[in-house]
Amino acid sequence: MKTVNAYAAPSAGAELEKFQYELPELKNDQVDIKVHYCGLCHSDMSMINNDWGQSSYPLVPGHEIVGEVIALGSEVKGLKKGDKVGMGWFSGSCMHCNQCMDGKQHLCGSSESTIIGRHGGFADTVRGHWSWVTLLPKGIDMAKAGPLFCGGITVFNPIVLSGVQPTDKVGVIGLGGLGHMALKFLKAWGCEVTAFTSSPNKKEALLKMGAHHVVDSTNPKDLESIAGSLNFILNTTNVKLDWDSYLSTLAPQGKLHTVGAVLQPMEIPAFSLIGGEKSVGGSPLGSVALTRKMLEFCVRHNIYPTVEEFKMEDVNKAIQHLEEGKARFRVVLKA
Amino acid sequence: MKTVNAYAAPSAGAELEKFQYELPELKNDQVDIKVHYCGLCHSDMSMINNDWGQSSYPLVPGHEIVGEVIALGSEVKGLKKGDKVGMGWFSGSCMHCNQCMDGKQHLCGSSESTIIGRHGGFADTVRGHWSWVTLLPKGIDMAKAGPLFCGGITVFNPIVLSGVQPTDKVGVIGLGGLGHMALKFLKAWGCEVTAFTSSPNKKEALLKMGAHHVVDSTNPKDLESIAGSLNFILNTTNVKLDWDSYLSTLAPQGKLHTVGAVLQPMEIPAFSLIGGEKSVGGSPLGSVALTRKMLEFCVRHNIYPTVEEFKMEDVNKAIQHLEEGKARFRVVLKA
Repeated sequence: MKTVNAYAAPSAGAELEKFQYELPELKNDQVDIKVHYCGLCHSDMSMINNDWGQSSYPLVPGHEIVGEVIALGSEVKGLKKGDKVGMGWFSGSCMHCNQCMDGKQHLCGSSESTIIGRHGGFADTVRGHWSWVTLLPKGIDMAKAGPLFCGGITVFNPIVLSGVQPTDKVGVIGLGGLGHMALKFLKAWGCEVTAFTSSPNKKEALLKMGAHHVVDSTNPKDLESIAGSLNFILNTTNVKLDWDSYLSTLAPQGKLHTVGAVLQPMEIPAFSLIGGEKSVGGSPLGSVALTRKMLEFCVRHNIYPTVEEFKMEDVNKAIQHLEEGKARFRVVLKA
Repeated sequence: MKTVNAYAAPSAGAELEKFQYELPELKNDQVDIKVHYCGLCHSDMSMINNDWGQSSYPLVPGHEIVGEVIALGSEVKGLKKGDKVGMGWFSGSCMHCNQCMDGKQHLCGSSESTIIGRHGGFADTVRGHWSWVTLLPKGIDMAKAGPLFCGGITVFNPIVLSGVQPTDKVGVIGLGGLGHMALKFLKAWGCEVTAFTSSPNKKEALLKMGAHHVVDSTNPKDLESIAGSLNFILNTTNVKLDWDSYLSTLAPQGKLHTVGAVLQPMEIPAFSLIGGEKSVGGSPLGSVALTRKMLEFCVRHNIYPTVEEFKMEDVNKAIQHLEEGKARFRVVLKA
């Protein structure tokens, strides 16, 4: 038994409050992490507000965790006490289904989510299965690494999954918490990067962040001017867009990929796919191995989300900041 | 100058009539083919009826041609007089754009289509650029090979493009002229093949043709019974379907691919793509090299479309047969 000091939403949409709970005895394959930092993600807001009908209260949010191993079971592999680690949206998966055995643990049908039916990282301690507790590579900036475990891997995975090459011309739709990380990854990937934004006043910031071109997505002429040129477009927004106009900016065999969970069905004309062998796909997060590779890539290229730091006890201020759309670009809580 | 004896539609939707026209002097890179057989494809009907607004009259249809080289220019590569050859939807492409140089001549932005702005294969002679005049492999059944050059390559290409493996479970929607060829290809590819049909009375025929399973696509319970199981689904119909119910039959990373040019936009929920890393794609025909490989594959596995043969002079009867939905499964005209 271990007492955890956490922050929890007592009911849907409520402010977070101090909350204590008991962790049962550690299982053989589990790891306890002392939380150093935890990112604040839009998915935390969705869970606090029960937007997805999957929340139970009190609810401890937080799934972009970095910290230190303080306890571990006898069957844990690859970790020891004191190791610096991270854990994201997933805290466990079944380890034996076809997806798990195939290295696609994030597609496991019975995976465990860090903040669904259990408590997350807005706390001094959080627990996970060893497979999803990822050793941090040497030299990583722990204060900025948290958001890599959810937002980061969410936009890194499609780059690998879609086979994006350094010779490719690519586009990113939406330059917020996810999009700005995608932009940095794709720049370091060697691609020619176009940022699609509906806020042309962001242009300077986006160019500074690495975009080669900034296209005003509200201007049909801007989209027409790059018709047939992009090999890959990543959508990070969850609003309904004129998907066909983006398809028209794709080169033959180009791919439009969404990580934004747009609620309205995407209207995709078959003709727009057939003529140029184009496709539309989506994905969630990424696998264990890819998370490790992403972290190494980040250290090698010095890529981090642009973060604003709040103290953990100021979590409600941080939430308000995010809700007011003021986050530039990702919020991290320091324990 | 060479006089060609052909059958042409004098105006949109009209019956075909005997028609003569003159071919200019052969260019250095061109080949004249004496037509032995020519398939009748739905695209011929669309062109006769000017459904796509691309027709000019008199219009000689026919783009599933097999025959014999009777004349060739001085720069023609890989062919000689008397060679048995085939030619399909394309009769030429630019040879120097990125797509052509990359072996994707079917995605060339300035390709020449056999029956758009020129005359096709319902004739004693037809002309093409050497690159699209494909040498037939030894042992091929010329009387049945015509439809391979349009319908055949159209359904063969997505199998290769989508990386379908012999270990995969796959589905085919629509078991007509295209779908029945897809079924035969996928069976020979080594896959477990499910045929989706809205005509359960076709079940016996489909099993005989090689399907392992036949699913009544009009029955939601039948679709539910195979939820999450298929790696690849090929849609060969051009009617609006409940795409999401087909996406739910896909396994993680499964692909839904359409060669049917559905007119209404496909309604694709982003959530249905994201959770399982699924995608929706489309494609037209296939490349020069893939057409050659397909023909070898057909000879090795004795795969041909199931054809009904009409004499070329009975072309209007053949068209009526196709229009009445009686074709089982593909119509070929014998010159």
